[in-house]
Amino acid sequence: SGLVLVKNPHLDSMEEDILYHLDLGTKTHNLPAMFGDIKFVCVGGSPNRMRAFAQFMQRELGLAGAGEDVADICAGSDRYAMYRAGPVLSISHGMGIPSISIMLHELIKLLHHAKCRDVTIIRIGTSGGLGIEAGSVVITDTAVDSSFQPRFEQVVLDDVVVRSTELDKDLAEELLSCSRDIPDFPTLIGHTMCTYDFYEGQGRLDGALCSFSSEKKLEYLRRAYDAGVRNIDMESTAFAALCGLCGLKGESYRFHLL
Amino acid sequence: SGLVLVKNPHLDSMEEDILYHLDLGTKTHNLPAMFGDIKFVCVGGSPNRMRAFAQFMQRELGLAGAGEDVADICAGSDRYAMYRAGPVLSISHGMGIPSISIMLHELIKLLHHAKCRDVTIIRIGTSGGLGIEAGSVVITDTAVDSSFQPRFEQVVLDDVVVRSTELDKDLAEELLSCSRDIPDFPTLIGHTMCTYDFYEGQGRLDGALCSFSSEKKLEYLRRAYDAGVRNIDMESTAFAALCGLCGLKGESYRFHLL
Repeated sequence: SGLVLVKNPHLDSMEEDILYHLDLGTKTHNLPAMFGDIKFVCVGGSPNRMRAFAQFMQRELGLAGAGEDVADICAGSDRYAMYRAGPVLSISHGMGIPSISIMLHELIKLLHHAKCRDVTIIRIGTSGGLGIEAGSVVITDTAVDSSFQPRFEQVVLDDVVVRSTELDKDLAEELLSCSRDIPDFPTLIGHTMCTYDFYEGQGRLDGALCSFSSEKKLEYLRRAYDAGVRNIDMESTAFAALCGLCGLKGESYRFHLL
Repeated sequence: SGLVLVKNPHLDSMEEDILYHLDLGTKTHNLPAMFGDIKFVCVGGSPNRMRAFAQFMQRELGLAGAGEDVADICAGSDRYAMYRAGPVLSISHGMGIPSISIMLHELIKLLHHAKCRDVTIIRIGTSGGLGIEAGSVVITDTAVDSSFQPRFEQVVLDDVVVRSTELDKDLAEELLSCSRDIPDFPTLIGHTMCTYDFYEGQGRLDGALCSFSSEKKLEYLRRAYDAGVRNIDMESTAFAALCGLCGLKGESYRFHLL
């Protein structure tokens, strides 16, 4: 049916669903009227960038109001920012798996309550590239963890549940073919490694703590490259697992290398 | 000496240290002049709340400019917000361990470069309480993970390093004794459990995914209570581990129960 799935039997018996961190809810807002025609959701870490992206989409789609400011739909919360431009929703998710997970739980319920159909979700943002040209865009085929495995370990109460982190291969190919029409836009498909830590987890030598040598760092990054990793982020495994389980059709990502 | 320690031999040989997510750096800013007299750092998730806290401290300390707006020292970055009120720095850290870790790495280097001495860091914010009166404040003696263990598992490259999450007992007692002077301010000392996930990790029945029953949830929370847990957050183990390793004197937290 193309609907967004929630996998929670408790939701049906709830009188009201408050999407707390988005400052939205089923009783306070008419979610089908506000969001029912959404077809694309683009998410990224920084609120300023996601506002700029919504303004860019307004111009690209030739929408009324292009060039003007866009309103933050989640203005009542300072946890996330949300903008829309026609059928495109642009949302910030902060940094790291816990932060994007809270947003995705509430976004998925929002799309479900709004009865959206055939929604594509794309994560956009910067990431550290591995052995690729600066300025390259990496389209992720599979998100992997810090051991290069295509899995997301979710702690449910105190059990560990392992979830798949495969992404939509057709969408990845479609995005790649779009890039061919744009000159000077080096784009490739590869694995994205997701870590819980920016400094010690990604081999940076300039954190407050660093216990490894430059050689050890390079050896790790070389092993990652050999396993197919082309860039590193802090959200991709949770994004892939949650979107995949909830039937968000054709999720994928693009990362700009800084 | 009371100085803030960095444990990274690579830092000494760096010509410049850019605290990227704070939009500060050793060449672009005179960090000792800007921050050398800081004695207290208060951190919390929400940028609006940390601005309000800085304004509250300005009034409480009777500082010039009290009642006026405070400037965001990290205005050039939308990742974190930072305000100061006399010797108190007030910084937001977003949600979850990865987000607070990035901020703490850069804050610890900032305090180190600024040659600050005898700094106390206190995390303030809301949290879910367990078996305690609504409105209670929990002062954390020890942060524990989702298995109720006093440890933080940090992935360094692809090794797992286990770190202690003990907090300063003297500071906890001092904070508790402060609370005795304030009427109607129920305050207790207990363990804080830190999870990576807000919905499935903390036993919530209203996420996009939920595979457990209400009974299973209550059984888990009861076990947590029996292990000494009095509230749940998403940052405390990483906070305790990082601050402890870097000699931030007397770290502790207070949580307001929603």
